[in-house]
Formats: sequence, C-alpha cells, structure tokens
Amino acid sequence: ARPRVGYFYTGKTGFELLSDQLKKLIVRHHHSVPVVVNDQVSVYDAITTMFLEDVGTLFVVNDHSLLVGVLSRKDLLRASMGNQDLSDVPVHIIMTRNPKIKVCEKDDLLLDAANKLIENQIDALPVVIEREDGLEVVGRLTKTNITKAFVELVKEDV
Amino acid sequence: ARPRVGYFYTGKTGFELLSDQLKKLIVRHHHSVPVVVNDQVSVYDAITTMFLEDVGTLFVVNDHSLLVGVLSRKDLLRASMGNQDLSDVPVHIIMTRNPKIKVCEKDDLLLDAANKLIENQIDALPVVIEREDGLEVVGRLTKTNITKAFVELVKEDV
Repeated sequence: ARPRVGYFYTGKTGFELLSDQLKKLIVRHHHSVPVVVNDQVSVYDAITTMFLEDVGTLFVVNDHSLLVGVLSRKDLLRASMGNQDLSDVPVHIIMTRNPKIKVCEKDDLLLDAANKLIENQIDALPVVIEREDGLEVVGRLTKTNITKAFVELVKEDV
Repeated sequence: ARPRVGYFYTGKTGFELLSDQLKKLIVRHHHSVPVVVNDQVSVYDAITTMFLEDVGTLFVVNDHSLLVGVLSRKDLLRASMGNQDLSDVPVHIIMTRNPKIKVCEKDDLLLDAANKLIENQIDALPVVIEREDGLEVVGRLTKTNITKAFVELVKEDV
C-alpha cells in the first residue's frame, strides 16, 4: 500500500492529544535545586536556612549525605509555637521521617509526581537517586514547579 | 455551499489544541473556600486558625468583611521568630497589605491566575468580588488548585 501523506484524521480527540503532550513532561526538566540540612542542626538554624534560601521545604540528610527527613514550613511553624528554645532542638526531633517520606526520580512523569503531591497533601518531593546505602537527594520538585509547567504549556504555543 | 461533515484537518497543531483546552479552565471551577481572620486578631490566633483549617494562606478582613491583607505561612513563621509575645501582636502589623495584594476573580482564566502566582512568588490569591467600598473575598486560589487541575487534565481523558 502507498503511504498516505498530508493531513488526515488521527483518531485522537483533543483530550488525547493533550494527554500525549502532558506525558512528555519529565521531572528532570522541571525540578529545582534541593536545599539540605544535616540532621543535627537546630530547628532555629533550619528556619534561618529556609528564609535565606527562600524555600518552603528543606531535606534533612545524615553524615553520609543520605536522605533521612523532610521539613516543611508547617513543621517549623508548629515547632516555633512550642515553649522550647529552638536553638536546643535538633531537626531530627521534628522532621517527617521514613517510611513517611515520599520521593520521585528524575525520569518520572511530571504528572505522577504532581499526583503524589496532591494525594499526600505535601508541597514538595525530594528528587532522589537510589544508592546501595540509601537515597541521595539531587533535586526538589514543588507545586511551584508544577504551576510553572502548567503556565508554560501555553507559552510554548507561541 | 453544502456543510462539510466528518473529520477534516482543522489547521490546528497539538499545541494549539492543548492551548484551547487550557483556556477553558476558569478560576470558578477550581478555587477553594477562603479562610479569613479579622485584622484585630493576634498573630497567635492566626497561627492557630491556620493549623485548625489546614491552609497555607489566610486572608485578613476589616469589620465590613472587606479584604485588607494576606498572611502566608512565611509571614507567620517570620513573626514567630521575633521576641514579641504573639498574643499581643495584631495581624495587621505583619500582614501583606494593599497595594501589594494580588487578587483574581471567578471568571479569570486559571492560566492567568497561575501566572500571577508565579510572577509574584506567592502561594495563593484571594478570589474577590469588587464592591463599591472594597473587595469581598469569595474564594482562595492556590498552587494546590493548579496542581490538581494539571493532574485532572489527563484524568478527564478516560
């Protein structure tokens, strides 16, 4: 049979074409730089780091630079309301730890990562690489990244 | 001329179709319920409200229920790091106020609202109705709403 040329009906609806476009979006092209703190730093220092770096989520690592926890603004605000001296409390006391940490990888679909953020009601996922002894943090994927991707979907149109 | 029936080339690319779909998304179908506090409540009470309602942004209204300010988790965390007694500080001291407040309306495109969130580096916009004497708050549009809309773009496909 001769190949058909030119335009013809592809059998796809608008939604299918949309879906095809969205499934091309991969975490590696959209994530931000991670901001990490050691699990021995104080809550006070973590809050200072959060303001200096202007991020909403910090990732906590051990002395081998492997992921052991996550700190959200909400976690830090809750801790700051307590009566303790924040300089005396190490972050590992208040952080979210395994197995509760949700992660993603560079080659994951942005859609799947977005779904994880929504289902787990969290603001950010660490982008990780699995090592023999644990997870190395190589990125930070946030609702801001998803919102930017959403806006850029149309900007690529022009 | 006889109307053409069946499928034919619309002259649109995948990106144009995508863009068409995205431009159908309107703020009114995606926003959340607003959580408001009076401008005389203390920072302490505002933080308590934020936790009870589990939101990242509070809108501040005056005695006529008109919008006068916005409080983010970041604003409250910053205030909590100071040396003041949070029960003694009214929120109007620390809130973001006009003309710095960014708003959206129910009939705005979700894309335009998303763009405002990104450009102004904020987490939420109040959805407002303009009254003679000011702005009435009728909703809250957040990066979570945008992330949900992003995920649902593909779910509607099935």
